[in-house]
Amino acid sequence: MPEFLELLPPGKALEKLLAHLPEPKLASERVPVAEALGRVTAEDIFAPEPLPGFDRSTVDGYAVRARDTYGASDTLPAYLMLAAEVPMGGKPDFLLQPGQAALIHTGGMLPEGADAVVMLEHTQQAREGEIEVLRAVAVAENILRQGEDVDAGALVLPAGTLLRPAEIGGLCALGLSTVTVTRPPRVALISSGDEVVPPEQAANPGQVRDVNSYSLSALVEQAGGLPARYGIVPDRAEAMEQVITRALAENDAVVITAGSSASTRDLTADAIQRMGEPGVLVHGVNVRPGKPTILGVCAGKPVIGLPGNPVSALVIAHLFVRPVIRRLSGLKAGPRDPVVFGRLAVNLPSVAGREDYLPVTLSPDESAGYRVEPVYFKSNLIFTLAKADGLLHIPAAVTGYEAGATVRVLLI
Amino acid sequence: MPEFLELLPPGKALEKLLAHLPEPKLASERVPVAEALGRVTAEDIFAPEPLPGFDRSTVDGYAVRARDTYGASDTLPAYLMLAAEVPMGGKPDFLLQPGQAALIHTGGMLPEGADAVVMLEHTQQAREGEIEVLRAVAVAENILRQGEDVDAGALVLPAGTLLRPAEIGGLCALGLSTVTVTRPPRVALISSGDEVVPPEQAANPGQVRDVNSYSLSALVEQAGGLPARYGIVPDRAEAMEQVITRALAENDAVVITAGSSASTRDLTADAIQRMGEPGVLVHGVNVRPGKPTILGVCAGKPVIGLPGNPVSALVIAHLFVRPVIRRLSGLKAGPRDPVVFGRLAVNLPSVAGREDYLPVTLSPDESAGYRVEPVYFKSNLIFTLAKADGLLHIPAAVTGYEAGATVRVLLI
Repeated sequence: MPEFLELLPPGKALEKLLAHLPEPKLASERVPVAEALGRVTAEDIFAPEPLPGFDRSTVDGYAVRARDTYGASDTLPAYLMLAAEVPMGGKPDFLLQPGQAALIHTGGMLPEGADAVVMLEHTQQAREGEIEVLRAVAVAENILRQGEDVDAGALVLPAGTLLRPAEIGGLCALGLSTVTVTRPPRVALISSGDEVVPPEQAANPGQVRDVNSYSLSALVEQAGGLPARYGIVPDRAEAMEQVITRALAENDAVVITAGSSASTRDLTADAIQRMGEPGVLVHGVNVRPGKPTILGVCAGKPVIGLPGNPVSALVIAHLFVRPVIRRLSGLKAGPRDPVVFGRLAVNLPSVAGREDYLPVTLSPDESAGYRVEPVYFKSNLIFTLAKADGLLHIPAAVTGYEAGATVRVLLI
Repeated sequence: MPEFLELLPPGKALEKLLAHLPEPKLASERVPVAEALGRVTAEDIFAPEPLPGFDRSTVDGYAVRARDTYGASDTLPAYLMLAAEVPMGGKPDFLLQPGQAALIHTGGMLPEGADAVVMLEHTQQAREGEIEVLRAVAVAENILRQGEDVDAGALVLPAGTLLRPAEIGGLCALGLSTVTVTRPPRVALISSGDEVVPPEQAANPGQVRDVNSYSLSALVEQAGGLPARYGIVPDRAEAMEQVITRALAENDAVVITAGSSASTRDLTADAIQRMGEPGVLVHGVNVRPGKPTILGVCAGKPVIGLPGNPVSALVIAHLFVRPVIRRLSGLKAGPRDPVVFGRLAVNLPSVAGREDYLPVTLSPDESAGYRVEPVYFKSNLIFTLAKADGLLHIPAAVTGYEAGATVRVLLI
């Protein structure tokens, strides 16, 4: 199964892959909110009660009837009788009468009869038991009404929401201490190539250590998936098919890093093709690095063949494996790929007609946000990537950039 | 201990805090590389061997002596005798003689005598056992030399490096299966306020649930720290001091969210002040939200007092808690705060003389990268923050932005 003659650009290739994936049937589980960081909600979450639960003051000051302050100024203050102090954490046990004010702290519950709060700095002490109000307040001023954040019954987090610190805080505010989230998708990682040995093994001349199983495990973990390593498969069709069959049965997605030679890559493509319909959808992508990428769907599950070179494998995993994990997690919106823009420090030639991803460093730049500089080194070396902050994206139509151009960088 | 009269801008306040922190004595531990994602190296790491370990072909083709191809072209090919095929994963057991070529796959080890590789597509079969070379190659062309990625003994990852997928791959490539990393800093989280109840408890009128302990736990976890929750402390000096003393002894940093009223905040500041020299360094920061922030150092450990409002607490934690965790982790460079720039969709007024952080959503914008739109809602509500993608940063000198302005957004 040789590469297709017409290479798809990465965006189109991803679209094709996602279009062939069935709507995921997501397994879910209930977890404590305190342990839910980075998980994705599996169902719509509604507010069981209004937030805030009562009318609250947003400042330190005096609860008043707004009309009692109309016309008040520094030169002509309004005089109000001090009725009581609102206790923090309790319900005021008094009714505010016309002409009265009650001392209230930020977050305190508004007493019945009051409809606004005057800030402390706009008052001063008059006689014992009396205050001067130096500025008028409107009804509802310095107050947060019951339900003003969310009404009881409101949809607060739709299914498919990523739980960040703010969402976790919101769930706690509503008294929800557990949350139903999708199970993280299991992603099988298979390395292949007769020259590849496990990293803990001494590499003889001609052998290289398995980098991809571990760098891709880390990438899968970062993207919210559960990596499962299936080790190194020799370059033989039966061995490859056996492992892929098992990996497909036990996981939600399968990622294979092919050996680096063309024949091994073909072996991988042939194996994927035999795993079930529709099989290989994309064989070869118009991108550098990563041209010999294979995208397929077998038995409703995505199967991705990555190039053997560790840098190519990581770049392509950013473009295809991350979005697939997002889809399998049920994530509806964000997180977007972490992309920043910056100003290129040097002239940069490129071949038109192909997307390029180039390792770059970022440094602060007052006017453009970031100064973007290529890592000057052979770009397919793993420690070149380790020196980089991101991958500069050069679209297919661009023949090169001049120094000073605004460019797009995918953070890694 | 009232707020200081002169409020520092957030950047200066952070500088002051970090300047008073002693150089951290970092505890370290040895962990498997496969479990080291997101950790920070505790010592310089040197390459125990060169990478690659041998001269490798970077293409599928024929290993040759470059001089044998000089002058070769489509019309005047060079004829070379096929000597052998280089086995993948092994050392070639032959010496390439002048006038010979050896079939080699990408990643294959260069046979002795060869000094370049001709790409397969620049050759064609001649007679049995002979090939035509259609293009000349220079010495070292299509070859990666032993040590070209890293030399044996080279510093590959300095102490203080964050381990991302690329670094993890690099360590595997060198056969390093464990790595010495710093222990994640333990960060104590203390909530205070008589009105605050645990999130699993029914909130009576006047009470609010503890949001900050959980949203900040998540933020600490995200930043690479180990959160330790100390629950809710009543607004009494002795109680507060007891808990802070215990938290200081058991952790590397202490974060207290003060009750929302001014008196509780003063209580927190007083307690910090009594915990040891130098005590409170900053009391009040020129930022909105988050003005009543307290920064201190006691017994060599950072103590941070955050405002009680959950949105203010999270914004301020981004500005101060994250950098402190980075420092305590021994992180030398990156990750930078994830900052993006975009084009503002609306006019936006602001008060000059104070930094503002405003919840915004981001959507794709072809020309500017992102379209930035404020979340139209009271900005200190937790579900407003949950709807936001980031915080728009308005510097102190800016009185407002016009629609179309390029603005800076801190991702949350």
